[in-house]
Amino acid sequence: MTCSIHDVAIIGGGASKVFGEQFGKSADDLLFEACFEALDDAGVGVEEIQAGWIGIAYPFTGLSGATMADPIKLYDIPITHTENYCCSGMDAFRNACLAVASGMYDMVMACGVEKITDQGGRGLPGLGQQHPVIFRGITAPSAFGLAFERHRKEFGLTREDLAHVAVKNHANGAAHPRAHFRREVTLEQVIKAPSISGPLGLLDCCPISDGAAALVITRKDIARKYRDDFVTVRALALSVYSNWLPFQPDFDYLAWRPTVKAAEQAYRQAGIEDPLREIDLAEVHDCFTITEILNIEDLGFCRKGEGGRFVREGRANVDGDVAINPSGGLKCFGHPIGATGCRMVFEVMRQLQGRAEGKQREGAKTGMAHNLGGLGGTVCGIAILSSEDRFK
Amino acid sequence: MTCSIHDVAIIGGGASKVFGEQFGKSADDLLFEACFEALDDAGVGVEEIQAGWIGIAYPFTGLSGATMADPIKLYDIPITHTENYCCSGMDAFRNACLAVASGMYDMVMACGVEKITDQGGRGLPGLGQQHPVIFRGITAPSAFGLAFERHRKEFGLTREDLAHVAVKNHANGAAHPRAHFRREVTLEQVIKAPSISGPLGLLDCCPISDGAAALVITRKDIARKYRDDFVTVRALALSVYSNWLPFQPDFDYLAWRPTVKAAEQAYRQAGIEDPLREIDLAEVHDCFTITEILNIEDLGFCRKGEGGRFVREGRANVDGDVAINPSGGLKCFGHPIGATGCRMVFEVMRQLQGRAEGKQREGAKTGMAHNLGGLGGTVCGIAILSSEDRFK
Repeated sequence: MTCSIHDVAIIGGGASKVFGEQFGKSADDLLFEACFEALDDAGVGVEEIQAGWIGIAYPFTGLSGATMADPIKLYDIPITHTENYCCSGMDAFRNACLAVASGMYDMVMACGVEKITDQGGRGLPGLGQQHPVIFRGITAPSAFGLAFERHRKEFGLTREDLAHVAVKNHANGAAHPRAHFRREVTLEQVIKAPSISGPLGLLDCCPISDGAAALVITRKDIARKYRDDFVTVRALALSVYSNWLPFQPDFDYLAWRPTVKAAEQAYRQAGIEDPLREIDLAEVHDCFTITEILNIEDLGFCRKGEGGRFVREGRANVDGDVAINPSGGLKCFGHPIGATGCRMVFEVMRQLQGRAEGKQREGAKTGMAHNLGGLGGTVCGIAILSSEDRFK
Repeated sequence: MTCSIHDVAIIGGGASKVFGEQFGKSADDLLFEACFEALDDAGVGVEEIQAGWIGIAYPFTGLSGATMADPIKLYDIPITHTENYCCSGMDAFRNACLAVASGMYDMVMACGVEKITDQGGRGLPGLGQQHPVIFRGITAPSAFGLAFERHRKEFGLTREDLAHVAVKNHANGAAHPRAHFRREVTLEQVIKAPSISGPLGLLDCCPISDGAAALVITRKDIARKYRDDFVTVRALALSVYSNWLPFQPDFDYLAWRPTVKAAEQAYRQAGIEDPLREIDLAEVHDCFTITEILNIEDLGFCRKGEGGRFVREGRANVDGDVAINPSGGLKCFGHPIGATGCRMVFEVMRQLQGRAEGKQREGAKTGMAHNLGGLGGTVCGIAILSSEDRFK
């Protein structure tokens, strides 16, 4: 048996029925929906799962692997809980894939969940009190808003450029049955929406949403027994920088270093030289409209400073050069933190299978899921998946 | 390249200089000590580390992989934060080993830390509020105390049997330069100590201690370039049961199901049929004296109900049938939660190299680290290491 992440296959995916304010459901309920949809999609029984990984960021949502074990009665096997700010779900997926590549387990599940509405007014409870930047009063909208000001000064990014991101992602999300925000918005609506922090208005920010997502992962040689249209892993990158990002001497709000470094890892693993030509779609972390623009640049889909124009000219549309957030992104799904990375992988899987639930990128063969965390600068996870490597 | 956990090697270990109340040091300081000692021990530069894993349980100690990145400037690589109650550190080690076995990384580091004295009066902040049992007022000493009552009724376990565990572990810890409690105690002192919860007195409980530990992990074929006396992995088990353990119909306080199930996994992986004959030493999770007795039984070192006698007769002494907690265990090191699993692995490594810092088990060739979490019943991690498989 060889050992390589390129032998890892995803044979099932699922998510909570909708993402949004789900006051009537617990984290257990959401996980139950996601995990059993993934198992049913794969045609795998829960008793076949040999190990699990779960991403959760909020201590109030859950702690330990038992948060995954209890709702689906997945007892007496290893379950790891990963927590890596907003990349908690992507890191659960990554460690699950590494474990399959190690040969230790044949069939595993990765999932993520967050019940943010259960936080009440507490915001980021454990996180905020420990985090050296949030602790000093900088919130996510204010930190990301600063990046816009710097971009405007350096590259002439405009308020309208931000609005184009929201218009595009809402147009995509409106077609997706699981999205929290399922309506289109106009440029004027985005620009005239109430300010949340400086330049970022209500429609530049992702909503507060609950949700869960899950994936069934195995090796290629086993995957063939379950379905013909499984997808395979081409890259699993993660890059961690500092908790003290705004205090680092090289930080300039023009790029997110973890995205740049994770992209280098990912393209090297996948053998990708020109991401714009070789990647068909990408679920990109768009907690705010400005975040998507910087990430598009940092991922190499265009040059630094050209992200605004890239979106404005329609090159990030579902039928553009590369479909950025064909699902509607965080902009429409919100960001149930532990769930997001797994939801992105689930979306990319469905796109590569030609069975997207919302807008389908036609002929998609290579897709990316990109997850950013820690006020933009601390951690980034990237997975690249393929529908072409099944029988290599 | 084959892929198997049996090709994984530990080439360096380190820990904070002491375990104890370290009001003058931060989690960063403790990690710095542990990580650089491990790197120096391995003869590996920090720039050679390709990926990291860190175990932390308290949200106030830290969140995300950046907690490991900042103190040692380990930037732009993947770092996963694992959290699995009291097994957080062991699960960091386990996922690090799986990643090496996958072939994805050649040289990685696993570590764990907890700064419990920074919790002030908050006890288990995020953990307690979410945990379904702690939330209802059951604390760790009261839950483990119930196990003693049940054992007394079923098997005639006595108060003196508990005290023998404390006497043994204090005798071991007194010789260990890093232990928090470095003094011997008598049976009478243990029995007459003030009650903490029912039968469990002050000297039946592990102290509140800060600390960190770290390990440098690679493959066997690489390990040979760094040192001759590296140790190798024979088993990496983890078993998760329920958060709702005391409400499970099969729970009887006579055994910790996660330990029983993880031991099954571990012995199968290691090819061990008779643990008492084949394992020379074990660092066993002894947060309370009663916990060690149940674990000795659950791990198969003796039959159910005979754990008290096993310790009383000296069979768990450093020169007994199997050395249980030759370091002094949690009883003397306390339980800085994220650190404990890695500290145990570090201790076992040194024992197998014949360079234990405290009491040395003579001729030790196979050792176990056993980590239990979640009020005893939710999760258990076991690693079995060997000094005999280096050149297999």
